[in-house]
Amino acid sequence: MITYPSFTVEPWCLRETALNLEVLAQSESVFALSNGHIGWRGNLDEGEPHGLPGSYLNGVYERRPLPYAEAGYGYPESGESVINVTDGKVIRLLVNDHPCDLRYGRVLAHERVLDFRSGVLSRTARWSTPGGRTVRITSRRLVSFTQRAVAAVVYEVEPVNGRARVAVQSELVANEQLPHTEGDPRVAAVTGAPLVGEEHFAQDTRLRLVHRTVRSGLRVGAAADHLIDGPEGTRWTAQSEPDVSRLTVTAELEPGQRLRLVKFVAYGWSGQRSLPAVHDQVDAAVAAAVSTGWEGLAHEQRTFLDRFWAGADVEVEGDAQIQQAVRFALFHVLQAAARGENQAIPAKGLTGTGYDGHSFWDIESYVLPVLTFTAPQAVASALRWRHRTLPAARQRAHQLGLAGATFPWRTISGAECSAYWPAGTAAFHVNADIAMAAVRYVLVSGDEEFERGVGLDLLVHTARLWRSLGHHDAEGVFHIDGVTGPDEYSAIARDNLYTNLMARQNLLVAADLAIRHPDRAEELGVDEEEAAAWRDAAARMAVPYNETLGVHEQSAGFTRFQHWDFDSTPPEHYPLLLHYPYFDLYRKQVVKQADLVLAMMESPNTFTDEEKARNFAYYDALTVRDSSLSACCQAVLAAETGHLRLAYAYLGEAALMDLDDLEHNTRDGLHIASLAGTWIALVVGFGGLRRHAGEDGRPDRLGFAPRLPEALSRVAFTVTVRGRRLKVDIGPASARYVLEEGEPLTVLHHGEPLTVTAGKPVDRAVSPLPARPEPQQPRHRRPAGLLSGDEAGEEPQE
Amino acid sequence: MITYPSFTVEPWCLRETALNLEVLAQSESVFALSNGHIGWRGNLDEGEPHGLPGSYLNGVYERRPLPYAEAGYGYPESGESVINVTDGKVIRLLVNDHPCDLRYGRVLAHERVLDFRSGVLSRTARWSTPGGRTVRITSRRLVSFTQRAVAAVVYEVEPVNGRARVAVQSELVANEQLPHTEGDPRVAAVTGAPLVGEEHFAQDTRLRLVHRTVRSGLRVGAAADHLIDGPEGTRWTAQSEPDVSRLTVTAELEPGQRLRLVKFVAYGWSGQRSLPAVHDQVDAAVAAAVSTGWEGLAHEQRTFLDRFWAGADVEVEGDAQIQQAVRFALFHVLQAAARGENQAIPAKGLTGTGYDGHSFWDIESYVLPVLTFTAPQAVASALRWRHRTLPAARQRAHQLGLAGATFPWRTISGAECSAYWPAGTAAFHVNADIAMAAVRYVLVSGDEEFERGVGLDLLVHTARLWRSLGHHDAEGVFHIDGVTGPDEYSAIARDNLYTNLMARQNLLVAADLAIRHPDRAEELGVDEEEAAAWRDAAARMAVPYNETLGVHEQSAGFTRFQHWDFDSTPPEHYPLLLHYPYFDLYRKQVVKQADLVLAMMESPNTFTDEEKARNFAYYDALTVRDSSLSACCQAVLAAETGHLRLAYAYLGEAALMDLDDLEHNTRDGLHIASLAGTWIALVVGFGGLRRHAGEDGRPDRLGFAPRLPEALSRVAFTVTVRGRRLKVDIGPASARYVLEEGEPLTVLHHGEPLTVTAGKPVDRAVSPLPARPEPQQPRHRRPAGLLSGDEAGEEPQE
Repeated sequence: MITYPSFTVEPWCLRETALNLEVLAQSESVFALSNGHIGWRGNLDEGEPHGLPGSYLNGVYERRPLPYAEAGYGYPESGESVINVTDGKVIRLLVNDHPCDLRYGRVLAHERVLDFRSGVLSRTARWSTPGGRTVRITSRRLVSFTQRAVAAVVYEVEPVNGRARVAVQSELVANEQLPHTEGDPRVAAVTGAPLVGEEHFAQDTRLRLVHRTVRSGLRVGAAADHLIDGPEGTRWTAQSEPDVSRLTVTAELEPGQRLRLVKFVAYGWSGQRSLPAVHDQVDAAVAAAVSTGWEGLAHEQRTFLDRFWAGADVEVEGDAQIQQAVRFALFHVLQAAARGENQAIPAKGLTGTGYDGHSFWDIESYVLPVLTFTAPQAVASALRWRHRTLPAARQRAHQLGLAGATFPWRTISGAECSAYWPAGTAAFHVNADIAMAAVRYVLVSGDEEFERGVGLDLLVHTARLWRSLGHHDAEGVFHIDGVTGPDEYSAIARDNLYTNLMARQNLLVAADLAIRHPDRAEELGVDEEEAAAWRDAAARMAVPYNETLGVHEQSAGFTRFQHWDFDSTPPEHYPLLLHYPYFDLYRKQVVKQADLVLAMMESPNTFTDEEKARNFAYYDALTVRDSSLSACCQAVLAAETGHLRLAYAYLGEAALMDLDDLEHNTRDGLHIASLAGTWIALVVGFGGLRRHAGEDGRPDRLGFAPRLPEALSRVAFTVTVRGRRLKVDIGPASARYVLEEGEPLTVLHHGEPLTVTAGKPVDRAVSPLPARPEPQQPRHRRPAGLLSGDEAGEEPQE
Repeated sequence: MITYPSFTVEPWCLRETALNLEVLAQSESVFALSNGHIGWRGNLDEGEPHGLPGSYLNGVYERRPLPYAEAGYGYPESGESVINVTDGKVIRLLVNDHPCDLRYGRVLAHERVLDFRSGVLSRTARWSTPGGRTVRITSRRLVSFTQRAVAAVVYEVEPVNGRARVAVQSELVANEQLPHTEGDPRVAAVTGAPLVGEEHFAQDTRLRLVHRTVRSGLRVGAAADHLIDGPEGTRWTAQSEPDVSRLTVTAELEPGQRLRLVKFVAYGWSGQRSLPAVHDQVDAAVAAAVSTGWEGLAHEQRTFLDRFWAGADVEVEGDAQIQQAVRFALFHVLQAAARGENQAIPAKGLTGTGYDGHSFWDIESYVLPVLTFTAPQAVASALRWRHRTLPAARQRAHQLGLAGATFPWRTISGAECSAYWPAGTAAFHVNADIAMAAVRYVLVSGDEEFERGVGLDLLVHTARLWRSLGHHDAEGVFHIDGVTGPDEYSAIARDNLYTNLMARQNLLVAADLAIRHPDRAEELGVDEEEAAAWRDAAARMAVPYNETLGVHEQSAGFTRFQHWDFDSTPPEHYPLLLHYPYFDLYRKQVVKQADLVLAMMESPNTFTDEEKARNFAYYDALTVRDSSLSACCQAVLAAETGHLRLAYAYLGEAALMDLDDLEHNTRDGLHIASLAGTWIALVVGFGGLRRHAGEDGRPDRLGFAPRLPEALSRVAFTVTVRGRRLKVDIGPASARYVLEEGEPLTVLHHGEPLTVTAGKPVDRAVSPLPARPEPQQPRHRRPAGLLSGDEAGEEPQE
């Protein structure tokens, strides 16, 4: 696998200076544009060559039957797959009879720039036809944050070395031919031609297609309008058929003359509304966009992003690559979530079809924490989506013989789509992850209406689930058996520590909220006895611990398992799940991804500093990080336990997951949670941001514990807390707290309370931690940042 | 579901006196004929009506892809399904233009008798055409134990109330239309038209069809010849096409005249041999059968069965139904195994397509124990089949990262066909079951050549598996983690007690045999160190025990699990697996089938009498017996722990599983292991037959501990041990040991050695056991024999 070498390191953009067809699909993912509603992969304007053509609408999927060679009660019967909807990006170019396809002729120059502040993807190219005529092509593309149904493209072509006859075809294309993929279960199940045409239209400069999915019954509309600017003699014509609607513009261009096309595209979809309604909706949206114009859209985009960066930016000094990576990450996290509006945030955002376009627990556990402090309205929206699916989750719980609600392991619509229950249905922790995401959002935003409504509903139904899923043993200890924690190399375990601690918080906060909102509690049928049962279960929750080793157990008995034989595991056998059977992974001490480490991050006050240090050393040596959800959590606990060099190496792994394609599947879409992990490693890791528990065990105090690795001279980040904007500016030996906006705010600095007022920055010293021996990672799995030159050469490059 | 009411209770046959079309499929299973090579379901001669037409050849299957919605490393890619081969049973009848189909016209009389001593299925019927012409039809059918490729039918028709024009069509039919089934995963995956014609032939009275399967590439030949006896004017003609070869005989019959057809059918199949070779093989077999003639075949059959019954019969006084059931059971067990000759014994024998025709561990653990004492050559044959698949099992072990061999959970050819690994691949106990079946066979038969060859190969490769599957903990205890024991309502458990104890025996005996056969051990590469490692692992094997409760644990931690809520489980929710998810079953104290109870039966000396009593009471209260493999084991331990009334009730459940269709799926074929369980309940249960361990822990002493329930006044059984025939004749207060043939033999009677010599019966008293409170079964799951009238009314009849 070739990784992408052609990105330059710049603070505010991602720039590609050469075109490498072999990694085209990866570049399409990193250059993808989205607003959380529409997603356009970074496909070349001409449509081909492509790695994977991709246009997505959040919530648009097709159903497919899930096959089982041996069926079982409660197995989901149908799955859901995101589909490639009508492609509005395509602008084909013909120069003197030669179709512009960069596989032919000669590419004299190529550059693409994704600007994180303007939110525009720009492209410039100089291309010679096989006949030798050279043209300069430029395009700019945006998916609007402010007009969520709208995307737009400016496309310009001009000849360089002589007169050229050009034809530009701007299209809406449905049911694009997709490359065939198979083998790796992480890749999407391919859905053939998912759309059935209902209407096609082309007139003057206007295009429209309306289609419908067959099984999921969703109607998808796309419309486009154009502004054309060319020399005298420029002509155009429009035509349509069921799967394509096309505007063709022709012109004869002398050097110095150019043809310019501005294309406005609007999308709409509905599972309910009629054909005329959807038709009108997209026509209206495109008309509004035309009225705003390209410059207007670009200006709105810039304003939207300026506001975002003011409250979200992370400045990094000492490592320009990390500086770029964290902004790249924040930009894509924002793109995935900004305008989702009561739809799920998929694991890959709207950048590819990986994981079938499903949303998983890592949205609540990795992505929402970042957005809670940087774009809280997106968090409320994502949680309102979960709330909207509560009826399905309650039905699923009932089917499984449980009380309350059981949210799906993977889904688009809210229906469980996981066909392998030991790593799906059994992973009940997703329910506490959702509940605690709501708690975190309320704590940080102060959104009381949300707390009373969506928050209480989610908390109560998940608390009921935990109470019915667990049970007391003869000694009165509360156990949760037969569940799967975050680590997917263990399954069907007893008392998974992460699950138990998350469930404990879930139960406690639910009981608290029920008391705080007695009227709503009564509506939900929560009485004193039920709340007491939640508190009792929480108080007696099992916390597995191995006294001999002095470490907590990932699940009861885990530390008694046989150790994985890392020394005999060759580097090319990673990820292990593709080379070893589940049965063997499950019964040995080998960890795919942060599990107990994540528990220490989410329940910081449950563990002493010494326990954290011993636990981290023990589990870091077992964690192979075959999941992109690992590195950032390892970074956080490495930083907390004083292993700053190691934390910095893990930060690098999290930050470069997609830019360096570390898991070799960025082609299928970006790892949104891992991107969020870049922020987590910096802010939660080196910033030490935590929700701390008070005396009563409720995690409602916000604290920082800043501490930088040697390589970084400064990390400064801004977070929004209850309407206040707080900047934490960390240097090698001290940290400055600046309240940029709002009422005074009290936080903890390394455990000590500190109140910061606008206009009065507060400085605090940072003392070094005691040195401890650095944890050892499994053989061949040291993070790249820690490798010496020799070792780096030995590591698998695949 | 209607169960079959029309069997009369007779000691040596099963007689049906009325035809009930709704349970036709069940009657086809119980009236199936087989010799272990050919299986013919008890379909009516005319072919229709039928429940499921079925003709099977042991080892003939088709492959089919196994679909996975989420694939994983090591998942089998293709499955195997038994197929309905060429049907040689069909003899259609036309009376005055009316096809004889018992759904039309009137059935004036109907009787079918399966005679356990003659091995012949007889039928008599009087049927009136819709036009009122009545004929008497008789047929007799056998599948020869002595000529394994041959089956034969005698078919006679005569008019009763006037002249009749009759046409009889005797056929070979391939690719019969099968009824469609779906839903219940226990039913076979339907394979459409599995056979491709290669040759068809019909001349004079001779018919032949040769076909080939598409994916598994097996060639199947069938030939028939006929003797025709009718009045003057009887004519016949033969014709064939690819899927049917047909002899049509016509005659005009006056009352008193009859048309008689004797049909000889021969089958052959091969994955290797050519079309002419298979063609010649079936022609030769049919010619030999013609030469023997019907009377000759019937005589051979009777002689074969006389010899079997002399060494295998079980006499029961006090319960005529049980007397019939145990002979029915032994007859079908013999049919399933007698002439398998290096093929598997399927779980349903050759009586139906249930479980896709696969063989499972219950053959080694339930069926072979019975055959070891009654038809030992069939045991050697079945184990030679396992030995033949050793290369595939070694390859599978290698794929799973293990040493030695891993035999498949379900298979026809030897390849793993289980698509659900938690209940397939993880059920490693099958390997010890196979090894210990070999050990049992050698002990009882004294077959030393087998021990040196097949036995040592099986023992060594399975011992290697166990040594690599388990590991020592820090205290030096040997654990086997992540495995599934016999109880399918638990999975992926630690230290399943049954598995650990079976593995312990496996390891010990393998080390012993390696010492006893040093030359062969050297061939297999077993040195002193390896044998020592086996002994060490056996010596330190974990045996989970709950000190507080004073009971052994089915697996480590099992007794800490939440108890299943039996009181809230309605009767119609059994079997539980169709109404509750696996995740819930796996994490609670609920037992599908004997697991720890089976361990106590197989390792009797590991437990004290008190432990057995406590364990049995504890687990009987958790065991719902959703598997037909339960009742007989519960009977054995109930008898051993003094609960004779309960043991008798369980005996009834085992004995009537198919005759009363207790699991409502006898239509798919008989439960061969449960049938074997009838013998186990009587001989191992009330006879107390066990292999006991000596001082050194090796289970090499044979003992009896006879004790009858009140309802039975006498149970007498004959077993063959190292060429001696021993009859144990048990009365209410004493037992008589009679050596019917062979050298003097020493056995244990209730733990006391006793030597018996031919011609000198030995009597021994039987003392009653101390009374203990009778164990309680889960609500709605008391065995039928224990229900009072009221309760019986409450129980689910479905």
